[in-house]
Amino acid sequence: MSPPLLRSRWVEFPEGVEELPANSLAPGFAAAGVCAGIKRSGKEDVGLLLCRSPQPASAAFFTANAAAAAPVMVSRKRCALERLRAVVVNSGCANAATGQPGVADAEAMQAKGAAVLGLAVEEVAVCSTGTIGDRLPLPKVLAGIEEAARSLGGDAATFQRAIETTDAFPKQVAVACQLEGRQVVVTAQCKGAGMISPRFATMLCFLETDAAIEPALFSELVGRAVERSFGRISVDGQLSTNDTVVAIASGASGVVVAAGSPAAERFSSLLDAVLLQLALLVVKDGEGSKRIGRVVVEAESGGEAEAVARAVANSPLVKAALYGGDPNWGRILQAAGQALAGSGERPISVAIEGVEVCRAGEAVAVPQPGLEEAVSGEEVEYLVRVGEGNGGYAELYFSDLSHTYVTINAEYRT
Amino acid sequence: MSPPLLRSRWVEFPEGVEELPANSLAPGFAAAGVCAGIKRSGKEDVGLLLCRSPQPASAAFFTANAAAAAPVMVSRKRCALERLRAVVVNSGCANAATGQPGVADAEAMQAKGAAVLGLAVEEVAVCSTGTIGDRLPLPKVLAGIEEAARSLGGDAATFQRAIETTDAFPKQVAVACQLEGRQVVVTAQCKGAGMISPRFATMLCFLETDAAIEPALFSELVGRAVERSFGRISVDGQLSTNDTVVAIASGASGVVVAAGSPAAERFSSLLDAVLLQLALLVVKDGEGSKRIGRVVVEAESGGEAEAVARAVANSPLVKAALYGGDPNWGRILQAAGQALAGSGERPISVAIEGVEVCRAGEAVAVPQPGLEEAVSGEEVEYLVRVGEGNGGYAELYFSDLSHTYVTINAEYRT
Repeated sequence: MSPPLLRSRWVEFPEGVEELPANSLAPGFAAAGVCAGIKRSGKEDVGLLLCRSPQPASAAFFTANAAAAAPVMVSRKRCALERLRAVVVNSGCANAATGQPGVADAEAMQAKGAAVLGLAVEEVAVCSTGTIGDRLPLPKVLAGIEEAARSLGGDAATFQRAIETTDAFPKQVAVACQLEGRQVVVTAQCKGAGMISPRFATMLCFLETDAAIEPALFSELVGRAVERSFGRISVDGQLSTNDTVVAIASGASGVVVAAGSPAAERFSSLLDAVLLQLALLVVKDGEGSKRIGRVVVEAESGGEAEAVARAVANSPLVKAALYGGDPNWGRILQAAGQALAGSGERPISVAIEGVEVCRAGEAVAVPQPGLEEAVSGEEVEYLVRVGEGNGGYAELYFSDLSHTYVTINAEYRT
Repeated sequence: MSPPLLRSRWVEFPEGVEELPANSLAPGFAAAGVCAGIKRSGKEDVGLLLCRSPQPASAAFFTANAAAAAPVMVSRKRCALERLRAVVVNSGCANAATGQPGVADAEAMQAKGAAVLGLAVEEVAVCSTGTIGDRLPLPKVLAGIEEAARSLGGDAATFQRAIETTDAFPKQVAVACQLEGRQVVVTAQCKGAGMISPRFATMLCFLETDAAIEPALFSELVGRAVERSFGRISVDGQLSTNDTVVAIASGASGVVVAAGSPAAERFSSLLDAVLLQLALLVVKDGEGSKRIGRVVVEAESGGEAEAVARAVANSPLVKAALYGGDPNWGRILQAAGQALAGSGERPISVAIEGVEVCRAGEAVAVPQPGLEEAVSGEEVEYLVRVGEGNGGYAELYFSDLSHTYVTINAEYRT
């Protein structure tokens, strides 16, 4: 399967998956996005997502940032996260660093969403994205929610636009897959291009499916897929104040995904692929990004592998070399050595696109032209091995560091 | 005291310190730099520093990087670090990632230095800086050491040039100070502009003084000054494979600096100021850097303060905003919150140049023009307070993130 934006060799969809039109919504869902006047551009900025099933399963994951935004606090504290039926969302203002008044605003958004949809408050999650430090224009937002409720339909196009901020392109996936001989649909909408523009806050992802699945299993499978996708990317190493993933399963297909079944395994692979694809689109949208890197680390322990992978993926030197198409393995070695600082001298090996360039701390003679060609593509893979490398594993996907990144982040004003 | 390059409000020299010509060397020392043909530019690339006193005190500090270069390994293992009498150094090649052959090369440099100076091997430290992954052109280096020994003199100019790589300007300090009614001189030479150019490795600093001081006290005072200066800067968060600081006290002044004396306190302040000045020059040389930032963190514990300071100083978003002169405190809050991830929601306050912009997680209304002016100078100071902020303290100096940084690191080829 190769939709236009996902030709990555790193995303493996299960056999037989069929692509649907990008704006599709899984059966049992309705959505809308409206122009409420929050964004100066006048584009859609309030969105509503509704699951029409009275007994859906849901799963939600939030940023670990200790300066979490008000909507994250409210969704965490006032929602039944395994029984969500709707999401109310705005872009253009993150409602972050707004203190108790911001919390009251987020609660008002949630209450309005529940009222217009006829739901209980705890069934409605609330999300915001946009500038940090500004209060929401609440009357506009509430009017927008009312208008969105009147506009609900079976298409995700306006909803997708209502969650975007500085995104250079929409990030959507819509696929169908056979489970137990019947069709199950998974659709998802995502926004984010790193914690990028001044005072803009990051990543939101909404996933809908018509599978019938228990909340505990759904949460486990979505959680694992989030960890393998959004948990494994770095645009600039920045964790935002507003990151949220909400997934809802309507059950409308009647196909039951039971724990331990082959269907669960296949469904899990499908969730993994959908979220990894969206995560890679976020990396690809990393402000002027030319290339995506993937670093795979084999080390003496899981913690060590994780530290080395993060050091490599977040090194501005490694990222600038990736941008320049420079097979600069000295920087990989340096970043890995930094992550291992204090543990004595360690034998570190590095391979780029399968070619070993450094073995146990010593350079390997490799013809430069071949290496330069290997790092000139859209995706570059690095392998780092510490010692024997058989005690721990980690991988991360990361964007490069471009002139455009600096321009956007230094010169842009909100 | 305001020598040309050190007008920072953050460097406090003790009262009555007098500046000497930049190329001065403290009494009891001789140095030289020669062109040995390692650098393609043909500039000085082998240096020698000698203390003529037979019983000097010395102190040496090295990178903690687990992929340390061969000269670091050799200096650590084969030197009497408190009784060093000489340093042999080359630029143009870091002798890093060169394995056992590289260690043999570094040992050969050390042995040659000892031979030409008539010293024991363990009295000679060895340093290298330049590209990672290349072997030293050993015959050229050894011939250079012989030539340098014949060129030794009381001026640091050629030695300074011999340690530079991509430095945009020399980094030297030479000062005299009254201790116990008599004059003591401290001189120092430094190179470094971050772990910057492709496969170039970083920071070297050599300090000479004619004070008479016991090695244990000298090591304690220099170590503390290193921690407060080079230990507190971040150009790009990258720890190099070759960082080395060597300090030698000849005792030629006859002025004894004894533990616990007022002289020791004054001498300690002098060392602090000299090394902080050099460290800030390294930050200032951070590839196209326009501004230097200082972040001061008051938190609930020392570890927490350190983590927040590092997260702010290393955030590409904060650095790009500093470059752009953008008073973008949302990014400070976000970086601080990221460093505290997993510890629940925390009340974080931020002040820029003394103006509170965020109090306990809530934006404070501040006129924008005044704030923009505050961040338009050459130095910008940020204060971050977590909770009551009375359990721990940390500060860091950092460079901005400029277009030139990306250009140098993406497009430059060795």
